[in-house]
Amino acid sequence: MSVQKPSIPKGTRDFSPPEMVRRNYIFDTIRSVFGKYGYLPIETPAMENLSTLLGKYGDEGDKLLFKILNSGDFLAPLKSIDHSSSSPDTREVAPLISEKGLRYDLTVPFARFVVQHQNDLVFPFKRFQIQPVWRADRPQKGRYREFFQCDVDVIGSNSMTCEVELLQIIHEVFSRLGISVRILINNRKILAGLAEAIGEPDKFIDITTAIDKLDKTDIGQVNRELAEKGLKPASIEALQPILLSSGSIEEKLTLLNRFFTNSETGKKGMEEINIVYGYLKDLHFPCPVDLDLKLARGLNYYTGTIIEVKAADVSIGSICGGGRYDDLTGIFGLKGMSGVGVSFGADRIYDVMTELQAFPSSLGTPAKVLFLNFGQKEEKESLLLLARVRKEGIAAELYPDPVKLKKQMEYANKRNIPFVAMIGNEELATGKITLKNMITGVQETISRDDLIKHITE
Amino acid sequence: MSVQKPSIPKGTRDFSPPEMVRRNYIFDTIRSVFGKYGYLPIETPAMENLSTLLGKYGDEGDKLLFKILNSGDFLAPLKSIDHSSSSPDTREVAPLISEKGLRYDLTVPFARFVVQHQNDLVFPFKRFQIQPVWRADRPQKGRYREFFQCDVDVIGSNSMTCEVELLQIIHEVFSRLGISVRILINNRKILAGLAEAIGEPDKFIDITTAIDKLDKTDIGQVNRELAEKGLKPASIEALQPILLSSGSIEEKLTLLNRFFTNSETGKKGMEEINIVYGYLKDLHFPCPVDLDLKLARGLNYYTGTIIEVKAADVSIGSICGGGRYDDLTGIFGLKGMSGVGVSFGADRIYDVMTELQAFPSSLGTPAKVLFLNFGQKEEKESLLLLARVRKEGIAAELYPDPVKLKKQMEYANKRNIPFVAMIGNEELATGKITLKNMITGVQETISRDDLIKHITE
Repeated sequence: MSVQKPSIPKGTRDFSPPEMVRRNYIFDTIRSVFGKYGYLPIETPAMENLSTLLGKYGDEGDKLLFKILNSGDFLAPLKSIDHSSSSPDTREVAPLISEKGLRYDLTVPFARFVVQHQNDLVFPFKRFQIQPVWRADRPQKGRYREFFQCDVDVIGSNSMTCEVELLQIIHEVFSRLGISVRILINNRKILAGLAEAIGEPDKFIDITTAIDKLDKTDIGQVNRELAEKGLKPASIEALQPILLSSGSIEEKLTLLNRFFTNSETGKKGMEEINIVYGYLKDLHFPCPVDLDLKLARGLNYYTGTIIEVKAADVSIGSICGGGRYDDLTGIFGLKGMSGVGVSFGADRIYDVMTELQAFPSSLGTPAKVLFLNFGQKEEKESLLLLARVRKEGIAAELYPDPVKLKKQMEYANKRNIPFVAMIGNEELATGKITLKNMITGVQETISRDDLIKHITE
Repeated sequence: MSVQKPSIPKGTRDFSPPEMVRRNYIFDTIRSVFGKYGYLPIETPAMENLSTLLGKYGDEGDKLLFKILNSGDFLAPLKSIDHSSSSPDTREVAPLISEKGLRYDLTVPFARFVVQHQNDLVFPFKRFQIQPVWRADRPQKGRYREFFQCDVDVIGSNSMTCEVELLQIIHEVFSRLGISVRILINNRKILAGLAEAIGEPDKFIDITTAIDKLDKTDIGQVNRELAEKGLKPASIEALQPILLSSGSIEEKLTLLNRFFTNSETGKKGMEEINIVYGYLKDLHFPCPVDLDLKLARGLNYYTGTIIEVKAADVSIGSICGGGRYDDLTGIFGLKGMSGVGVSFGADRIYDVMTELQAFPSSLGTPAKVLFLNFGQKEEKESLLLLARVRKEGIAAELYPDPVKLKKQMEYANKRNIPFVAMIGNEELATGKITLKNMITGVQETISRDDLIKHITE
């Protein structure tokens, strides 16, 4: 076989030990907070049937699904296609040769899971799920084709205490990770109410899609898009105070009150927002939660509260987001299951923590001591002592080969191992051990029984 | 959209909370032992370039790879194929429409990783990797299309201390998990030596492949297979003492000694085995390690020690296995890197522990207390107290809706939550809280300040 230059598919990543240690710190923190709030872990397969995935993420999403070629003679079904026609259509051929796809997010598999296992679950069902997802997006800085999502959802309750619990989780996760955040909330019923109030109820989706872009573009562009979507000039005009809204929550609610005299949906949205703020006040919630009337969140399954979190000190887009959905499981046959959840973006959180230098410096020192290797005779004594050290639960290593000591020392240095233990010819004779502190450079000969005390104190 | 009956691809699995908790217990145990021995975590992408995977697992393995359809107009490259020919060949078409595949094991991606990142790694490089792999195998009991491997390898050292370290890891993992095991070892050089000694050096692979089946079939069948592969009757006859070998390690080594008078490879294999046994004796290794001359391990990249672990009390095949390879990274351009590693089969270990009832009973009780929900007014007090409980690091929940108490109690029961806390009308007036122990059934009214003490003692 010829030699291959090793590479991985574009948009994917290898994680080396230093990255893994930091990523696991993020995952462990998130997992531990989820657990404290009573959420339980689940996992779903990487592959789902395409019938589960298709049509759930819009046309654009369908295109971004990674499809898996059927096994065996995958071409057999194609033989019914008329090959004399100039070029077979990709959309026609794909379903014939591929029935499975890689999961695109954790939400649709979660909905599928809940319906499939509904008789075994206890509702309200509080679950979390930390797994990779795959999207055939054009790779670019900070956007990968394989990335991890950390989802937490409660399904089977209409109570706004669920929203509040998620806000508490968000606050606790980011506090523990050392990231200052801005939490933004809104309610899709408020957005629907606005569409109603300006006399364009049918344009709800167009309006939210346009508003969603206010973050990245200017108001002129958004207004042009609204006009292109067929909104009347008067409707666009009426929407301006909302698009330009700033100021306190009270001011925004006053503004909405004026709008919603004729919109029941809008009033309901305000009522829900007020309930959430009521809880936050009762709880002396320790972090500002801004009402952002321009917050829309693209996904159309949201029906109530929507939530988005941005890092206060790093400009990187949202690092967590989600909302309430009233009928996510409906498509799989389970109606009337309201739920709410948020997803933490592990990759962006990693980037934020790197920029803020927020990772604890103690991460990534697995071995406390390296025993140097002086050859067969000495090695035996080292192995016995090494076993005693490990028995105490202390991570430790023996350099496997009796190579030059300089090389062994370098290994300890590069691996950030703080102590090096030496049993050479002399220590073999005296029954002692020489211990070098790799940080201070201090070296001393001690009793072997004292080793554990020295490396742990 | 029409309602879909939810399902997942055959051979894949959802993991519900009780399964997840048990699986995580296995993974956490394994991960913690790996760390104590100084191994560092890495992860590689689910998708690899097919050029990395193809040809590494034999023809059979190539067929079992899950291939990913190229994105976009994946049919474009097909237009050059002559469609007038009756039926295009699957092997001809596949590379044109698919460039990526799902990883089949963790070993080949590891070799690819080591070569690709060789300049950033510290050698000897000790890594572990716990990730799912995918194989388009025919699903059956205990065999899945998505399953987890837990691999631990050291690469860049010829030292037999590495083998010994892996045996120590194996012993510690299974001791901690409460599984009694039989560890079997052999050496591929011994097998090669046997082929040499019986005058059939070219038939080494055929011999190991046939011997590998002795576990599942009888010696007559193995002899017939050897004959079919073209071994001379005299050679097969000469092999019988080995195929039938039992008895002590010393007896087996004596037997081999007779065989290997003319085989340098065989002698080298015996020498390596003797070194391993020497270390185990020095270390008073607390678990029998049997020399099994019939142990072959299918994979052809092994060149030295091979290891296999079976559960002593459950009949399920091997639950861990591996060996030394001298040139795994050669195909990717890095020569002369000897390594050794083993892989723990998480799914079989799970099955063994289930059968042995070896999982700790304390697993899977995330919330210590459930606050019942008596309605808006009472809820506020519960939320405040709940926040105090969680602040102490204790997992706790509030039932989100003020539904019938019976239903809320059922939730606590089904979730195995040991305490239920009640702040109803009366407790609101008295400033107290009623606490019910769900195991004993005892209910008492206590001071709210005493709640934490009561649920933790």
